[in-house]
Amino acid sequence: MADAIRVLSMEAVHRAKSGHQGMPMGMADVATVLWTKFLKYDPKKPDWADRDRFVLSAGHGSMLIYSLLHLTGFKSVSMEDIKNFRQWGSTTAGHPEYGHTAGVECTTGPLGQGLATAVGMAMAERHLNARFGDEIVDHRTWVIAGDGCLMEGVSHEAISLAGRLKLNKLIVLWDDNNVTIDGVATIAETGDQLARFKAAGWAVKAVDGHDHSKIAAAMRWATQQSKPVLLACKTLISKGAGPKEGDPHSHGYTLFDSDIELARKAMGWEAEAWTVPAPIKKAWEAAGRKAARPRKAWEAALKAHPQRDAFERAMAGDLPAHAFEALDAHIEKQLELKAGDATRSASGAALAQLVPHIDEMIGGSADLTGSNNTFVKGMTAFDAPAYDGRYVHYGIREFGMSAALNGMALHGGIIPYSGTFFVFSDYSRPAIRLAALMGIRVINVLTHDSIGVGEDGPTHQPVEHLASFRAMPNLLTFRPADIVEAAECWKAALLERKTPSLMVLSRQKVPAVRHQGGNLSAKGAYELKAASGEAKVSIFSSGTEVSVAVAAAEALEAQGIPTRVVSTPCWALFDRQPAKYQAEVIGKAPVNVAIEAAVSLGWERFIGQDGIFVGMSSFGGSAPQDVLYKQFGITKEAVVEKVTAKLAAKAG
Amino acid sequence: MADAIRVLSMEAVHRAKSGHQGMPMGMADVATVLWTKFLKYDPKKPDWADRDRFVLSAGHGSMLIYSLLHLTGFKSVSMEDIKNFRQWGSTTAGHPEYGHTAGVECTTGPLGQGLATAVGMAMAERHLNARFGDEIVDHRTWVIAGDGCLMEGVSHEAISLAGRLKLNKLIVLWDDNNVTIDGVATIAETGDQLARFKAAGWAVKAVDGHDHSKIAAAMRWATQQSKPVLLACKTLISKGAGPKEGDPHSHGYTLFDSDIELARKAMGWEAEAWTVPAPIKKAWEAAGRKAARPRKAWEAALKAHPQRDAFERAMAGDLPAHAFEALDAHIEKQLELKAGDATRSASGAALAQLVPHIDEMIGGSADLTGSNNTFVKGMTAFDAPAYDGRYVHYGIREFGMSAALNGMALHGGIIPYSGTFFVFSDYSRPAIRLAALMGIRVINVLTHDSIGVGEDGPTHQPVEHLASFRAMPNLLTFRPADIVEAAECWKAALLERKTPSLMVLSRQKVPAVRHQGGNLSAKGAYELKAASGEAKVSIFSSGTEVSVAVAAAEALEAQGIPTRVVSTPCWALFDRQPAKYQAEVIGKAPVNVAIEAAVSLGWERFIGQDGIFVGMSSFGGSAPQDVLYKQFGITKEAVVEKVTAKLAAKAG
Repeated sequence: MADAIRVLSMEAVHRAKSGHQGMPMGMADVATVLWTKFLKYDPKKPDWADRDRFVLSAGHGSMLIYSLLHLTGFKSVSMEDIKNFRQWGSTTAGHPEYGHTAGVECTTGPLGQGLATAVGMAMAERHLNARFGDEIVDHRTWVIAGDGCLMEGVSHEAISLAGRLKLNKLIVLWDDNNVTIDGVATIAETGDQLARFKAAGWAVKAVDGHDHSKIAAAMRWATQQSKPVLLACKTLISKGAGPKEGDPHSHGYTLFDSDIELARKAMGWEAEAWTVPAPIKKAWEAAGRKAARPRKAWEAALKAHPQRDAFERAMAGDLPAHAFEALDAHIEKQLELKAGDATRSASGAALAQLVPHIDEMIGGSADLTGSNNTFVKGMTAFDAPAYDGRYVHYGIREFGMSAALNGMALHGGIIPYSGTFFVFSDYSRPAIRLAALMGIRVINVLTHDSIGVGEDGPTHQPVEHLASFRAMPNLLTFRPADIVEAAECWKAALLERKTPSLMVLSRQKVPAVRHQGGNLSAKGAYELKAASGEAKVSIFSSGTEVSVAVAAAEALEAQGIPTRVVSTPCWALFDRQPAKYQAEVIGKAPVNVAIEAAVSLGWERFIGQDGIFVGMSSFGGSAPQDVLYKQFGITKEAVVEKVTAKLAAKAG
Repeated sequence: MADAIRVLSMEAVHRAKSGHQGMPMGMADVATVLWTKFLKYDPKKPDWADRDRFVLSAGHGSMLIYSLLHLTGFKSVSMEDIKNFRQWGSTTAGHPEYGHTAGVECTTGPLGQGLATAVGMAMAERHLNARFGDEIVDHRTWVIAGDGCLMEGVSHEAISLAGRLKLNKLIVLWDDNNVTIDGVATIAETGDQLARFKAAGWAVKAVDGHDHSKIAAAMRWATQQSKPVLLACKTLISKGAGPKEGDPHSHGYTLFDSDIELARKAMGWEAEAWTVPAPIKKAWEAAGRKAARPRKAWEAALKAHPQRDAFERAMAGDLPAHAFEALDAHIEKQLELKAGDATRSASGAALAQLVPHIDEMIGGSADLTGSNNTFVKGMTAFDAPAYDGRYVHYGIREFGMSAALNGMALHGGIIPYSGTFFVFSDYSRPAIRLAALMGIRVINVLTHDSIGVGEDGPTHQPVEHLASFRAMPNLLTFRPADIVEAAECWKAALLERKTPSLMVLSRQKVPAVRHQGGNLSAKGAYELKAASGEAKVSIFSSGTEVSVAVAAAEALEAQGIPTRVVSTPCWALFDRQPAKYQAEVIGKAPVNVAIEAAVSLGWERFIGQDGIFVGMSSFGGSAPQDVLYKQFGITKEAVVEKVTAKLAAKAG
């Protein structure tokens, strides 16, 4: 049965002239034991809630999972798809893609992240288990990881978090073949992985990755541990590939026609290409049926479960009916507000209206709870054995945190949010990208969003981060201006089932600027203040600088210059609006200004090539924030001066 | 003497009402032993080449290093500066900044990176030692790291790389105080750090961080190991802070006036604020003089050294006189070229003309050597004990690699370059940011730069990365179009002493487009092809899409539409050009087009609000690259169609 994986993998890669047969062939035995004896899944119902999660962290070995899905009877991968491996329109993309191929639990390829995402899945399982009980939530998360996954830094964050949280339903199968692309792995790595995982609180064991009975014994042992488990599976890369077996160069597409011939001969595989002998296919399909057996009992248990509705709603990703009642009332009250606050506090105030009403929300911070305003009174720590807690102490692990968020969202039943400083989004960026690519609802809270950070200085002051995330497809980068916008942005973010969001928030206080209702932030950009007459000036801004824009507009109006102000809390949502609305918001004022305590890249789409930009063109500095705003010229006065000079030049 | 650090730290933080006294007070004893008994440095000559490097990886504890610099007699930190801690214009920025304060070897604050950068410094030391000998290069790299540094993923990449390379001159002093911002560290971390470092090949030992003789014994032991060393220094946070000693909440600014009073009393410190008693200051200055004693012998050795000129030139960062002779000749030859190649190959061809002539260049790749074209024939591996090698097998550690590059450049005497896929720049981005902030010459080679990656699919296809790096201050993002531009870009990058560069390169082959001389890439953007008459269309493009632009221009010209083409290999260099040149390059054609296999953000600066953008607005897909270019509409035909439609609309 394992040879079926081997042949499909090597022939699909050979036909595509690209891809990797080394790992699928090397790990075919381990995968066969897992998928025939241990993994709980149903090929007929890939989204069965209590299935085990299987994550191929070494995503380049995608033919392994495509082979398994095809052989066990998932409809998502036909033999035609395998023939069309890595071709346009097939379900067999170069790397496994969530949402593209049923049965793929997670998009993988960027190394280390499958493992880090799996930690989030295992957290979700424990939490929902605590919430709904063993009868309907009790499954494992299995990961296949390669040397590359374990060399990536994120693996450290993932394994130490998993060890700390004692996630014993998490089992990692390491393809210990001592090969990476540049040659034998030891040219770059000589660490003792077993000792390393043990130091992080894991149970560890090495096993011959080609001996089925030993693999099964090790897996059985793994399921009995009270800690997360690493099984080091000693394998030969490209096992079964005749003369290329064990050859470091057989990692990727390198087999000649003659190698394929010899490999088939060595395996005694005589079936035509793109066929699997009927007895073998039948055995695989029987394994698929066996793996699905627990589903009937589970369905009965769910039917009888007192919280069935809540469970099904949570897993479907639907919000409770009254999710936004408290928030809407809160917004209504704030419209009157004149006094301001930091937008991080505004976000915290919104969370206080949401977390008690949406049980699926699980928050946390990378050791900056007090600064990120992510904690809501009444939350308790998610911890072993108190997995019912809804607040996660992620530690100083921004990347691991964001990847865990992705895993929770992928698992389903959870709407996770995180907290760190905006500048450290650089650390978690690879996970934010995968969230955008997978199209999942995770919300990364990112406070301390500009030179407004003040004394901590340029290492802690984002200037390029807004532009860098506005460039990312399928991501909503929210930067609210005050307490009303913050609440609106949270609502908009929660309503997006297939798009992740960033909440970009200030450390420093700003005045309240928004006094009209109507959930305007959901449009991405809107006219906050109309001009007194035909507008001569349009000022565009976001976040804390909107108050600068309003002050500048008032000063210009006082000089008799009709000036309007547009707030732009989320460019990506503005992009979705009809062209007519966009044109209205951009307007036709002869002078256009953008104010943002960040670099200008991208602002030309609002202000054109000859617009005035008031913002940053360098990194920041270390001083109190009001000093920095003055030193970098982001002030009402600077705006008024530039605008009047430009109007004079136009008139003159 | 240690109490002098404590008092300065707590009082500076107290006055600034921001910052962190917890670590400086906790590690004052360890730092005192190090700076009075072990560290080799000269307050009168902070840039002495053979000094030990001291890196405060836990950069938030900046008052520790400012206290040490002030006390030992560095001119860069006066008592006035300490009083003005974290204020505009002082040398005592919130986090230590390289280039801002003499004696600060590395900008720190983003946790974990100081440690990872120090690995690069230790690599540089070993390499230059191998090149120039013990007489003039023989020093250590000392790091103070906190819990946060060791929780960050990059610490894993750093310590496993250092362990693999047996960097025994690297000694890490871990402030083992079991405190992080959110409380006791164990709320998030329970791993065994000693076991973890040991697993990575380090020598490890725990020591009482408040017992000077034990600290000294441990440091002596550390200097005798054949591996990198971790000393776990058991400390109390805010040691000496009276009632706040050991209190997890005393990490940052939280001491009241009364706490300061009590702390002074407990320490028996009676001196006025902002003064250090003369005997203590004298003792510290004597320690500074003692630490500088080896300098005289070193100067004599350097004077007598046969390679003195080469050493001094390398450390000064000057290129050899004939650095570019071979490259210039190579460019001359390529101008005739018609056949094309991948720009990664073009970059490899340029490197082949540079590496043999510039001994300071040290290359490497994160396990993608063959794909990145970073290896030049004749290079040998940098490895223990063969530290004279100039090619580093970084392993699958993109972030650790880029941080190591930073460390090598900071050390001096090395011009480092790296290699990975462009999409994985997300992993190394935090280190690229620090390189930009510090203003150092490192070159990150990033191949596989668009959907041109093909079959590997969207996880491996950057679409937002160009915009994200164009937004970063003080960074040159080069995307050459062919072999001539690639060589010109390498030259421009090497000539930038204070700005890091990215080389963004293609996997797929493209035709040669550049046939005129004149080092035009150094201007960032230039007219590659003039229109046949008054231009009706300007097409702007970069990298592999320049050939699409040229083909489209030819097709438009064939229809009688005068069309010019502008190549934009480096926007940041274009920004530096005089306004007149910029205006000429942008031109005044009624129709403007940008073509780039990436998102549009920022292109409005070339094509205005109503320009035509031909590129990506989503993530890519998995298929052969020519199929993807067609599917996403980045073709000559699409350009011609859109341009003619627009011209018709304008006419109509």
